[in-house]
Amino acid sequence: METYRSLSLRWENGQLSILDQRKVPHNEEWVEVKDARHLIGLIQELAIRGAPLIGVCAALGLSQFAHSGVSHETWLKDAERLRKARPTAVNLMKAVDFVVKDLEFEPGWVEEVRLRAERVLQSDVKMCEGMALAGQSILKAGDRILTHCNTGQLATAGRGTALGVISLAYELGQKIHVYVDETRPLLQGGRLTTWELDRLQIPHTLICDNMAADLMRQGQVDKVLVGADRIARNGDFANKIGTYGLAVLARAHDIPFYVVAPQSTVDEGCASGSEMTIEQREASEVRGVTFLGGLSWAPELSPVWNPAFDVTPAHLVTAWILDTGIIRTFGHEAKEGVS
Amino acid sequence: METYRSLSLRWENGQLSILDQRKVPHNEEWVEVKDARHLIGLIQELAIRGAPLIGVCAALGLSQFAHSGVSHETWLKDAERLRKARPTAVNLMKAVDFVVKDLEFEPGWVEEVRLRAERVLQSDVKMCEGMALAGQSILKAGDRILTHCNTGQLATAGRGTALGVISLAYELGQKIHVYVDETRPLLQGGRLTTWELDRLQIPHTLICDNMAADLMRQGQVDKVLVGADRIARNGDFANKIGTYGLAVLARAHDIPFYVVAPQSTVDEGCASGSEMTIEQREASEVRGVTFLGGLSWAPELSPVWNPAFDVTPAHLVTAWILDTGIIRTFGHEAKEGVS
Repeated sequence: METYRSLSLRWENGQLSILDQRKVPHNEEWVEVKDARHLIGLIQELAIRGAPLIGVCAALGLSQFAHSGVSHETWLKDAERLRKARPTAVNLMKAVDFVVKDLEFEPGWVEEVRLRAERVLQSDVKMCEGMALAGQSILKAGDRILTHCNTGQLATAGRGTALGVISLAYELGQKIHVYVDETRPLLQGGRLTTWELDRLQIPHTLICDNMAADLMRQGQVDKVLVGADRIARNGDFANKIGTYGLAVLARAHDIPFYVVAPQSTVDEGCASGSEMTIEQREASEVRGVTFLGGLSWAPELSPVWNPAFDVTPAHLVTAWILDTGIIRTFGHEAKEGVS
Repeated sequence: METYRSLSLRWENGQLSILDQRKVPHNEEWVEVKDARHLIGLIQELAIRGAPLIGVCAALGLSQFAHSGVSHETWLKDAERLRKARPTAVNLMKAVDFVVKDLEFEPGWVEEVRLRAERVLQSDVKMCEGMALAGQSILKAGDRILTHCNTGQLATAGRGTALGVISLAYELGQKIHVYVDETRPLLQGGRLTTWELDRLQIPHTLICDNMAADLMRQGQVDKVLVGADRIARNGDFANKIGTYGLAVLARAHDIPFYVVAPQSTVDEGCASGSEMTIEQREASEVRGVTFLGGLSWAPELSPVWNPAFDVTPAHLVTAWILDTGIIRTFGHEAKEGVS
């Protein structure tokens, strides 16, 4: 693999560059990754975000660092530090582990690292294509689709999860319209999904999160498609805060509600949503916005509740669209074929 | 009436001063109203907001201008311009009409204007007390109350509508906790309600609008209290965008949902919510924030849907708390006594 380019990353002759997502949509700034410390900073400061994308960038970064001539001892320490860059990012840990595991530091180990890193990249792209293909059967011409957060090319190395289903439908000629929840507090919908849909020329409309219900009541939403960060054995799933509310509203308005995620998101060690721990984030995120220069509008010490994710019970999900096929009933796991 | 002071307005020796709500919570700036043009500007630029408060300020302003020695011809023209300062504000029109109607321009007319203006003020304060008293029967110790937008002293001349019920309960010693929806796009919850509750020392927590559902699922919300801009004969009501979604979510979680508004909000000329026209506002409000210096985070030309209000059907309302009593079933109008 010589070169790979997407909206969020570039892999060219062993050099990783990333789009600085903190600057989107106002500026499109590409950053050449220098070393492990630099990459860790980019991940921690959210220049790189989206669990799958973080994992892919970590793997490619490890390949770049291995080729830079560092000793394998240094490289292993870098890998360990990189693995901990964001504590809750399972994809990051899995990607680093995949590159490092049982590696023998014989001549040519750097080539082995490169092969493994590129397999992480290719696997992510392939999973995205699998989900996108699997999802086509649930969409039809004229569909008005509501989505939440960013689940596209800015969150993965490929075309994305929920947004990947949507973008493939559009490429295949379906006339669709996308409603984009702005997704407070980090505004991944308002900042990133709008920008991505604009680049893809897919018709869309931005709304505030609290407008989704009224849009449904007016009959303007045919389907809801969201991603998932973790799916339990029984089909309950964790996703960006606001997802659960959409699922309840969709059910109240008889609107089908779909989860799009790779099979690898299913955590067989997790029996149900009640076992999932939800991270609380900084109060400053809710008191204002903390990027693009930042602005605070709440009283300085306002008490805040700021969960990063919520958990949606399986009974509110119409179907789970995985790269391996569509699941209509979790537990029974009655999969439909992809092709 | 020599003097009246609230959190949002001061009426002292015939001079009106208002709190500039555009600067809240970062600065508490009081502005002495100079003339009609000045007051119209303050209303149009949202330094004064909240339909009841706008009406009261218009009435008091007219008294101040009459006493400034202008001819009654000039004063009438000012009144007409003031009446149109915000086209959809029914309270504003009603207040101006009340002051101007059948006024005879004989010696002492300026005293008559003052009496009428102060009656508008006193009536608003009294209606707030009526609602607050009526609402006490639905609250109990330990209640965790979710509210939306700003419905307190920054929206009325008195203690407010929904927030007035809450603040009186707190004064009477009820141990309550308030969850505050930030209320995108104009953030009246995040900016104003938090500030007001902080001033009143009422325990509260700020959340993003899309967190309300998860909070309900976790059993953290006992009641939802909101205001209303207009109530139809059948009990359907219009209120700040996001209200309808809360009503659906409250029903799904078996949480009582209350509307608090003065009897004058009931529009007998409106049979149901389907007759209500909803104003669309500027796209820039959704693409970012447009005050406290402003910040835009969406692509410059992102298409936006930005309704100011939504309509909630009567069947989702547990009860309507009016200044004249509690209504459990609209149409039957089975009122309970206030005292």
